[in-house]
Amino acid sequence: MSSAASTDDRRYVLSLGCPDRTGIVARISAFLAEIGGWIVEAAYHADADTGWFFTRQAVRASSISLSLEEMRERFAEVAAELGPETEWTLTDTGERKRVVLLVSKEGHCLHDLLGRVAAGELQCDVAAVIGNHPDLERVTKRHGVDFHYVSFPKDPAERGPAFEQVRKLVDAHDPHAVVLARFMQVLPPELCEHWAGRAINIHHSFLPSFIGARPYHQAFARGVKLIGATCHYVTAELDAGPIIEQDVIRVDHTDEVADMVRQGRDIEKLVLARGLRWHLEDRVQVHGRKTVVFS
Amino acid sequence: MSSAASTDDRRYVLSLGCPDRTGIVARISAFLAEIGGWIVEAAYHADADTGWFFTRQAVRASSISLSLEEMRERFAEVAAELGPETEWTLTDTGERKRVVLLVSKEGHCLHDLLGRVAAGELQCDVAAVIGNHPDLERVTKRHGVDFHYVSFPKDPAERGPAFEQVRKLVDAHDPHAVVLARFMQVLPPELCEHWAGRAINIHHSFLPSFIGARPYHQAFARGVKLIGATCHYVTAELDAGPIIEQDVIRVDHTDEVADMVRQGRDIEKLVLARGLRWHLEDRVQVHGRKTVVFS
Amino acid sequence: MSSAASTDDRRYVLSLGCPDRTGIVARISAFLAEIGGWIVEAAYHADADTGWFFTRQAVRASSISLSLEEMRERFAEVAAELGPETEWTLTDTGERKRVVLLVSKEGHCLHDLLGRVAAGELQCDVAAVIGNHPDLERVTKRHGVDFHYVSFPKDPAERGPAFEQVRKLVDAHDPHAVVLARFMQVLPPELCEHWAGRAINIHHSFLPSFIGARPYHQAFARGVKLIGATCHYVTAELDAGPIIEQDVIRVDHTDEVADMVRQGRDIEKLVLARGLRWHLEDRVQVHGRKTVVFS
Amino acid sequence: MSSAASTDDRRYVLSLGCPDRTGIVARISAFLAEIGGWIVEAAYHADADTGWFFTRQAVRASSISLSLEEMRERFAEVAAELGPETEWTLTDTGERKRVVLLVSKEGHCLHDLLGRVAAGELQCDVAAVIGNHPDLERVTKRHGVDFHYVSFPKDPAERGPAFEQVRKLVDAHDPHAVVLARFMQVLPPELCEHWAGRAINIHHSFLPSFIGARPYHQAFARGVKLIGATCHYVTAELDAGPIIEQDVIRVDHTDEVADMVRQGRDIEKLVLARGLRWHLEDRVQVHGRKTVVFS
Repeated sequence: MSSAASTDDRRYVLSLGCPDRTGIVARISAFLAEIGGWIVEAAYHADADTGWFFTRQAVRASSISLSLEEMRERFAEVAAELGPETEWTLTDTGERKRVVLLVSKEGHCLHDLLGRVAAGELQCDVAAVIGNHPDLERVTKRHGVDFHYVSFPKDPAERGPAFEQVRKLVDAHDPHAVVLARFMQVLPPELCEHWAGRAINIHHSFLPSFIGARPYHQAFARGVKLIGATCHYVTAELDAGPIIEQDVIRVDHTDEVADMVRQGRDIEKLVLARGLRWHLEDRVQVHGRKTVVFS
Repeated sequence: MSSAASTDDRRYVLSLGCPDRTGIVARISAFLAEIGGWIVEAAYHADADTGWFFTRQAVRASSISLSLEEMRERFAEVAAELGPETEWTLTDTGERKRVVLLVSKEGHCLHDLLGRVAAGELQCDVAAVIGNHPDLERVTKRHGVDFHYVSFPKDPAERGPAFEQVRKLVDAHDPHAVVLARFMQVLPPELCEHWAGRAINIHHSFLPSFIGARPYHQAFARGVKLIGATCHYVTAELDAGPIIEQDVIRVDHTDEVADMVRQGRDIEKLVLARGLRWHLEDRVQVHGRKTVVFS
Repeated sequence: MSSAASTDDRRYVLSLGCPDRTGIVARISAFLAEIGGWIVEAAYHADADTGWFFTRQAVRASSISLSLEEMRERFAEVAAELGPETEWTLTDTGERKRVVLLVSKEGHCLHDLLGRVAAGELQCDVAAVIGNHPDLERVTKRHGVDFHYVSFPKDPAERGPAFEQVRKLVDAHDPHAVVLARFMQVLPPELCEHWAGRAINIHHSFLPSFIGARPYHQAFARGVKLIGATCHYVTAELDAGPIIEQDVIRVDHTDEVADMVRQGRDIEKLVLARGLRWHLEDRVQVHGRKTVVFS
Repeated sequence: MSSAASTDDRRYVLSLGCPDRTGIVARISAFLAEIGGWIVEAAYHADADTGWFFTRQAVRASSISLSLEEMRERFAEVAAELGPETEWTLTDTGERKRVVLLVSKEGHCLHDLLGRVAAGELQCDVAAVIGNHPDLERVTKRHGVDFHYVSFPKDPAERGPAFEQVRKLVDAHDPHAVVLARFMQVLPPELCEHWAGRAINIHHSFLPSFIGARPYHQAFARGVKLIGATCHYVTAELDAGPIIEQDVIRVDHTDEVADMVRQGRDIEKLVLARGLRWHLEDRVQVHGRKTVVFS
């Protein structure tokens, strides 16, 4: 896939979903042509199952004389023509996105993401890291990022205040993504709702296999020949949110649980990094329980 | 992996499983050295979880002056020393193996297996093909193989006689493998028991995801990003037998169910062919719900 | 990817390449909207390296009242506006495509392709099979396809008349694709030129590694850890034509050349089937030494 | 694969290569049984092409009453029986291994390896990092590791003293592995010779394709559909040393060189980490231009 990272160019990215009918592409592209927009990337998907149409178009910012705000105003009229169910966003790759990471004790995803941000691979700033254990404070601070430790009571029934504290710490940054980077805590439904479409989890199995706790132990017990990882949006139903990305790695009878844990980490890192990148580049559109990913 | 197919050489293959302790390798290899056995392939696995030891050794038949029967008699004494739980087989790659295929309407696995047998990739003869529909009779007969059509009543409760007929047709060949090549019928428990360790199924999902009917429809509904196939031994619990091999292929939002069916076929064919080949070469040992595969 | 095979619907497929500039998408989609075209699939690519624009659009035939010929005439005016370098085709998935296969002694690709055509996976007819050895006549005829044996002299300098005979046999069918399904003969430059964009080869290595003869032997000697296959258009320079598809499979130190040959066959079949399918569905556009594949 | 990391257990690891004949396994396992050795892992390979035999055996240290030195002395007699060409090592997983990393400006492999060592995934200490540019000093020191900057003259003919300085810095640690983690400098033949079997390079292509400089640019120009990475021992012939590990990732026409660079990094990191881990666990044996990897 092409990426903003691969050129110096700033782009305006239009994402849209609406009921399918003839003439949508013509209407949108006429609009873009009218304002002089040079299309760098364009992707379409007409979903036969749901009768829905999806598109993502990246236009060179320099080719358009309107401000982003003016462009949004003008496009709102086009969107209105496409019907009341139409959902769309128009974003600017020149705007730096903010991410907050929720972690626990396992640091491999955190280490990997911080490294990618430092290397310029992910176009975002890590605004803060919040841990329900203090273990990852040092590695976080080394990267010059704030770390907040929030203590979680053992009794799940008493965790309300802790989640409330997490919520405040996260919302202070109004982030584009809240990443559960092996957070190991199930978000309460109200937080799932509050961060809907922004909370991204990495689950260490190939969902829907091995939902819930200790998936590598479950995989070992079942004797599967591949283990996987799944990056998905968080919803109130555990590990059942729309899947953004998945991948697998081969294991065999010589692999004990500890070997699966070690090898699985490599897949978790890759799958989370890809999923987060696509999310931040507005390449992911959610429709019902599923995603359209214009990677 | 090396294979009997890759040389002209005939081999004796020893497979053994027993409780682990020191000295097993020494005892077995001393025996083989004693009778002059030239080891071409040797694989070992000490399972830390169950405390079980597994080995497979392939020896050049030409290096041994004993007959296979004599070698079995002599080795029985060694096995006895390794304890009463020891299970072992000693087979001859020069003995052509027999396979019976159970099919329904979908012919891709049948076509693929017949092609591989004809090309000498699978060291076996297809003794017969049995279908619960007559659709695949023509392609079977083209390959010079007998086809038996067994009509199955719509009501599952009345299928007993049909299964009894299948059993007789299969058992007439005393096959080394009974392959459910997209058979689409759930074997009754008594047949699972009767063919235990010989009945091999190909399930068109990455188990344990999407057990039962119409797995591609289930995968489509869940929005997974990879679809898979699983080759496993048949047991009484549906799609829960020991897994021999699995693999996956990437899908995305543009793939409708029909696309998944088409792409999935390629994975089903590969996974079944690999699993069957390893079974026929005595590379698979079952232990509890899991397999050791010396591929 | 979606496919004509996955619905009953007939489609008109527009493929176009031209120098990139603003307004191309708008112009084409305005045209399609004007004639009532319901777009089922649309893909675009703006190539930053060459400044070229590519698109493929599939429209429901039933949504358009024009005949294909009328539509072509009307679209020619649009294409003219996009500049003299514009190249385009407009095809009808309702038209059954014709394929001629060139083979030698190895039958796995032939067997696989005939099986896929019979199963309706590839939307084409195999018009004829031509072999420089008679070995594959039987399997070809079993599928009801004509087989022509053309004897090739040992001396490459004397093969002109044989190639001329092949050319006549092929051209009699005016095929959409001439597939070298492990043909093992290097086409003379004039045939490469004559069938440019239609002759498709499967090479049994991951090009550009291991060009020329006996690539598995080369791979074995080098000790690579993956072997591959490459499907590409044939050009006068050996194994250097535009690549349509590639894939690989893992090997290790236990794999002898014969094992690589056997495992490689599975990759050859998959890669050739995918490449041919994309070619027949007008998903491949060649630009210079490279391809754009709207899979 | 099982790993020392997956249990608390200390192991003695025997690696051996010798001309193949009958009785080798018996001789070695008799020796191990004699001294009470509990074999945890055992792997064998008889190479049909070269007539060579390879084995790796991991034994629980706690099961053996001899010291490692005594065990070596006793085993030397066994090895002598196997002939004068026999090569073997006997190592102790309780001995912490030392690694020196050579780097340039690209930090992804360095960041990845330091993270893995910190997480306990790689059983080694990074003794020092040496850069021909100062760019990676900060990230190195953050991990508490010494960084040495060695300035390299532009003229390759004048780099002798710089390489001499690198050699001294490396040899001061007598490391088990010298890792060229995207070092971007071709080692002079005398250093290749000096560190033979210990110097490990990561090359950012699927060798033997795209040897030398700027392999992603070469891959882009050729239009390949997969890009890869290769971990190999360094020898005097550029990018031609024995391959330890390779892997690939899919690319397509939308990927510009910058996208290949970004995606390729993920494969480079994985391939180098796997290759280095197998080297440090004595799982790799070199024979001629090839490796046997008991992973």
